[in-house]
Amino acid sequence: MGLAAGYEAWIITVGNEVLIGRIVNTNAAWLGKKLTLLGYRVRREITVADELEDIAWAFKMALDSKARVIISTGGLGPTFDDKTAEGLARAVGKELEINEEALAMVKEKYESKGMKLTEPRIKMAKLPKGAKPIPNPVGTAPGIHVSMNRYDIFSLPGVPKEMQAMFEEYLEPFLKKIMPHVIFVERAIRSYGIPESEVAPLIEHAMRQGKRVYIKSHPKGAELGEPILEFHLTASGDNEEEAREELNRVLSILLQELRNKCAKVEVL
Amino acid sequence: MGLAAGYEAWIITVGNEVLIGRIVNTNAAWLGKKLTLLGYRVRREITVADELEDIAWAFKMALDSKARVIISTGGLGPTFDDKTAEGLARAVGKELEINEEALAMVKEKYESKGMKLTEPRIKMAKLPKGAKPIPNPVGTAPGIHVSMNRYDIFSLPGVPKEMQAMFEEYLEPFLKKIMPHVIFVERAIRSYGIPESEVAPLIEHAMRQGKRVYIKSHPKGAELGEPILEFHLTASGDNEEEAREELNRVLSILLQELRNKCAKVEVL
Repeated sequence: MGLAAGYEAWIITVGNEVLIGRIVNTNAAWLGKKLTLLGYRVRREITVADELEDIAWAFKMALDSKARVIISTGGLGPTFDDKTAEGLARAVGKELEINEEALAMVKEKYESKGMKLTEPRIKMAKLPKGAKPIPNPVGTAPGIHVSMNRYDIFSLPGVPKEMQAMFEEYLEPFLKKIMPHVIFVERAIRSYGIPESEVAPLIEHAMRQGKRVYIKSHPKGAELGEPILEFHLTASGDNEEEAREELNRVLSILLQELRNKCAKVEVL
Repeated sequence: MGLAAGYEAWIITVGNEVLIGRIVNTNAAWLGKKLTLLGYRVRREITVADELEDIAWAFKMALDSKARVIISTGGLGPTFDDKTAEGLARAVGKELEINEEALAMVKEKYESKGMKLTEPRIKMAKLPKGAKPIPNPVGTAPGIHVSMNRYDIFSLPGVPKEMQAMFEEYLEPFLKKIMPHVIFVERAIRSYGIPESEVAPLIEHAMRQGKRVYIKSHPKGAELGEPILEFHLTASGDNEEEAREELNRVLSILLQELRNKCAKVEVL
């Protein structure tokens, strides 16, 4: 956000189907929103192919950054091209091994349906040495949690309802606990009749009036013709009342400036 | 795709609104699909914040890879937080300067509406030295094309209809021209009643029967209970007939294997 809000987070997506555009990366958007609301600053989203080398590369880049939290989705299933556990193991320099707790989770899922533990199913219980399995309340593949130096790394499945359930049940309480207290507030307005190229100096001026406020403009209509702009204002702080007060003060200044330029403005 | 198809491509998305999950990255999916159909292998998608350092980092990573083509979207507008041109200039080690051709494009757009060239509007005509502007038939900000060593780098605006029009009018003919002739064919089937953890060895076996064929399974139902799987088979080659023949041969083998396991199968 250009804000010094809380810790930094990286999101890694594993999956050819995302790279070739067969599916849109809604997982990254869902995680980005959740992390932002928790006060994390999402600094990178990286999507890589289902290749060991590429997955390990993404984790290494994240481990080489200022990220406090790294979350990956995809590549945890039973097939040969599910390689996230191995890529993560390589990046953190650990061996993959059968994790007994994870094996018990997988076994219980299949045995409750009268199904045996086969090699591809056992594969889902192989985690980097020292990692903890994350329970999967919806599907069969456990997630992976590695705590290492100043990082917490979480690998979740790519199926959205599994990923979301595991985030809400396991990650969210953990991420709240480790996060210093940061409040994040936002407001939005829409203007009609003023092109984006004219608002640049107004935004800069308004932002200078609140040091923890960030304003971003998004063109929604044509720059020439019928310009429509949305402005998203966000502020962070350790005190909600103060953050909100500063946000509202900057909002008033921006509204006044836009009206001075004869733009029609709506508060959203 | 796990395929040795054509050249590699990287996609870079610039924008806080993507990182915080306010918008889903449909631009990357659209570009991923287009590039794949043109025979390119999309190897990375990276989303970064509207920060000079982050944008330059993404371009540097791409320039340090095996990519032949690098496409960025976002960050080309008139506001102070549109920093893609500067980030690109830093990554390729060039100065930003007013490009006369780009300035003429911007000037014409505004003057045709009776609007003057202000500082924020002139900013949209500042490109890395030696770059070519890409005409924007929909909006006002020109794109940027840098040819350098073995790379072609294209920066496009983030507004989808502008990005898409510029891709189709400028990039697509260029990308077709530089691409060695590669054909890319695909087929899909859906199976009912067999869990993904049981198909792993079938897929491996089928894939070994065609060296240019790649199969990926996507779970659509619950692994336990009512398993539904979709299989996407893709093949590449320099001859469409051969690629299709190989794909169909592998498809028949997979269909037979699935039916042997008593799965119900539909060809999509």
